[in-house]
Amino acid sequence: MASDNPSAKRHKSSKDVPYELIYWPGIPGRGEHIRLALEEGGAEYTDTAHIDGGMDRVMSYIKGEKPDDDINTPGFAPPWLKHGDLVISQTPNILMYLGPRLGLVPANDAGDDHVYRVNALVLTALDGLSNEPHDCHHPIATGLYYEDQKPESKRKSDDYVKNRLPKFLGYFERVLQSKASGDGPWLYAGQLTYADLVLYQCLNGVRFMFPKAVAKYEKSGNYSRVFKLYEAVEQRPKIKAYLESDRRQKYSMGIYRYYEELDIEP
Amino acid sequence: MASDNPSAKRHKSSKDVPYELIYWPGIPGRGEHIRLALEEGGAEYTDTAHIDGGMDRVMSYIKGEKPDDDINTPGFAPPWLKHGDLVISQTPNILMYLGPRLGLVPANDAGDDHVYRVNALVLTALDGLSNEPHDCHHPIATGLYYEDQKPESKRKSDDYVKNRLPKFLGYFERVLQSKASGDGPWLYAGQLTYADLVLYQCLNGVRFMFPKAVAKYEKSGNYSRVFKLYEAVEQRPKIKAYLESDRRQKYSMGIYRYYEELDIEP
Repeated sequence: MASDNPSAKRHKSSKDVPYELIYWPGIPGRGEHIRLALEEGGAEYTDTAHIDGGMDRVMSYIKGEKPDDDINTPGFAPPWLKHGDLVISQTPNILMYLGPRLGLVPANDAGDDHVYRVNALVLTALDGLSNEPHDCHHPIATGLYYEDQKPESKRKSDDYVKNRLPKFLGYFERVLQSKASGDGPWLYAGQLTYADLVLYQCLNGVRFMFPKAVAKYEKSGNYSRVFKLYEAVEQRPKIKAYLESDRRQKYSMGIYRYYEELDIEP
Repeated sequence: MASDNPSAKRHKSSKDVPYELIYWPGIPGRGEHIRLALEEGGAEYTDTAHIDGGMDRVMSYIKGEKPDDDINTPGFAPPWLKHGDLVISQTPNILMYLGPRLGLVPANDAGDDHVYRVNALVLTALDGLSNEPHDCHHPIATGLYYEDQKPESKRKSDDYVKNRLPKFLGYFERVLQSKASGDGPWLYAGQLTYADLVLYQCLNGVRFMFPKAVAKYEKSGNYSRVFKLYEAVEQRPKIKAYLESDRRQKYSMGIYRYYEELDIEP
């Protein structure tokens, strides 16, 4: 529960209720970043992926039929987080809201500098290791099938695994080498933050999508800190239990997809 | 100056110094969102676009040769904001930092719900009206020239002006119709926030890139609230003065580009 966490105190409010994640049932997708944060934070939450009528509930949010509309603005697309009467959209935004409440950013002494440094890492991971992979199978149009943009997907994937992926791996390796990352395997200030969870989840998805490329980069040794972080996240007791549970959904036709013809060796 | 602003008080810290924007000289680009916030907020700031050696300074940040590296993590790409000893990257992150300090989000009574609602709007505007337009001339690879991906750019632009652009315009029209937007032309709570500035700047860029499409959608009357907001931002005295000054750079080879063959009528 969030309220067990000492760093959540400054945010204590009337919202001492479980979180609700509203996201497409059937794929990990963007919702997975939020699930990992909630799981690692030991939060009580419900999830439209695992309730009766979950899909209807997602659709009601998309159509703007949700309650609390008087104070909340409509969101463009899932995921949404509902917490008490607050309803917010956008993955990095939801994570930034959850971070301090779940003890997944360092507690602030003066100012709130930590959250902005962590948020920058999250936005960069999502840009390069979630949005760009998604665009690999949808380079021309999100509204078209992959089958309608196959040659372009091949070209984009080729560029991605050869140029973009190592660039982002190299960036996070550099972050892990920086003094600001502190001791231990984590990205920031020597302690686990939700940015580590996001980087883990992104890399897990990219590995599913481009296994040959990730295997080669792992073997190269050039990104050893990144892969150590990956293992360290996977070994966190709550994350491990979650990944082994049936709450963890399989990749299918979401952001990370496996197409043999796109599994290019760099 | 930020310190003139009453809502900046809760954030008062040792950082009572001018802001510094570190961004590519010569293009408005992503830095422009930050400039508009600083200008509307009446903040003191310096800008690498207008100082001697600005480009060298941007490069030193890209290479990670900047000071304050012990406490700040490296950033992947410009823009950066330096404020005292804090150095952060990522446009929406920088805006979220500046918003409360410049009085560009409603003051919080309890909790900080306002900033998360405003941040969601900003992330959605940047996704659909900045990142997607950028990808229109770089659908296959950011590292290739537009000239190397012209047929794909045409297809993507065609989808963008016919499907994506009206979808995002319609979304923001819906936000402006919602009760949460309050009275007046603004997106949230009846007052100007930095989300309005972002939507203005995005639409200004999209209009430069796809003038035929924007003219047609404006004329349709289906997005009248969006275009009213656009005009209302443009008429803000500080914004107006800024846009007429030589601090406002012209669009060229940045995110928003004009290619006649991509100026498609929807």
